[in-house]
Amino acid sequence: MKLLEEKIRSEGRALSETVLKVDGFINHQVDPVLMSEIGKTLASYYKDKGITKVFTIESSGIAPAVYTAMELGVPMVILKKQTSKILTGDVFQTNITSFTKGTSYELTLSQNYIQPDDVVLVIDDFLANGEAATGATRLVEMGGARIAGIAILIEKAFQRGRKRLEDNGYEVRSLARVSKLGRGLIEFTEADL
Amino acid sequence: MKLLEEKIRSEGRALSETVLKVDGFINHQVDPVLMSEIGKTLASYYKDKGITKVFTIESSGIAPAVYTAMELGVPMVILKKQTSKILTGDVFQTNITSFTKGTSYELTLSQNYIQPDDVVLVIDDFLANGEAATGATRLVEMGGARIAGIAILIEKAFQRGRKRLEDNGYEVRSLARVSKLGRGLIEFTEADL
Repeated sequence: MKLLEEKIRSEGRALSETVLKVDGFINHQVDPVLMSEIGKTLASYYKDKGITKVFTIESSGIAPAVYTAMELGVPMVILKKQTSKILTGDVFQTNITSFTKGTSYELTLSQNYIQPDDVVLVIDDFLANGEAATGATRLVEMGGARIAGIAILIEKAFQRGRKRLEDNGYEVRSLARVSKLGRGLIEFTEADL
Repeated sequence: MKLLEEKIRSEGRALSETVLKVDGFINHQVDPVLMSEIGKTLASYYKDKGITKVFTIESSGIAPAVYTAMELGVPMVILKKQTSKILTGDVFQTNITSFTKGTSYELTLSQNYIQPDDVVLVIDDFLANGEAATGATRLVEMGGARIAGIAILIEKAFQRGRKRLEDNGYEVRSLARVSKLGRGLIEFTEADL
């Protein structure tokens, strides 16, 4: 997606070989026009895939996910990051360890918001090792539903997230694929959409 | 806002005299059409107030805030809930204690995303004791900017949040004002918008 690549080039900040900050338009300050365009681009690709729900992981995926869900005419579900296990039986939970941040949390989905006949599109802002996205797929599977695809805003194509998701049978579509990072250096490889 | 009141009546669940669950369309599963309508309603009220940024508190305010920001043609900023103080000097932080949840966090704003000439609209999903919204106003004040107003989706009008914000000189506008809650009971008083 040209618009997203241009934004990353002009406003993204590569801090190291693995860290790309996009706080100015995705993660802290959010550009609504970019989010709306992302929603249109994703909906255009997924519109004939029978999607019944868009899932995202709180909180940076919410803005692009709500626009995509709007365009697809389906609800959006925010998978919650809980610090501890919920002991009642009405939720699905799976443990996620973020290698980037060195933190761990229980990704949580109420059983009320997934049904076996759901066809789910998972949207997340970043794909690196695929830990969070893989957790999202586990929750969808616990609910007995099907995943139509995993859509990513910014993929770190030099990390193993895509391979891991594809090895598990999921289709990954990224709007921007960063092939190399360094201090002040951001290189792209061809994106999917 | 009639549409929001109707949603609360039909899909909200009052669990006690203080707890209202709106997990089915705001907090966990999100209704994009409702969010878009909320954005239009808020933008229509605030459009001539010189707003330069919409602030919200992660994560349930993000969806309505991004639609409002889109309509107003300004960026949206997500105030982050950090578990601990950030020791570098480039952020504003203020401690928030949630009485509802019994938790405490550091509400955090990068100094990059506020300027003294900003005019800020604060949007949050719930107003109860006003703890989170008051924290948001403190961050805006640390940045030397002005608050044009505080917009709330669901106000618990029987709690002290509005009075506290108004006593501090801020205008509060709520889309739904719940006057009484009980098991299975939800009563409204007239909303602002």
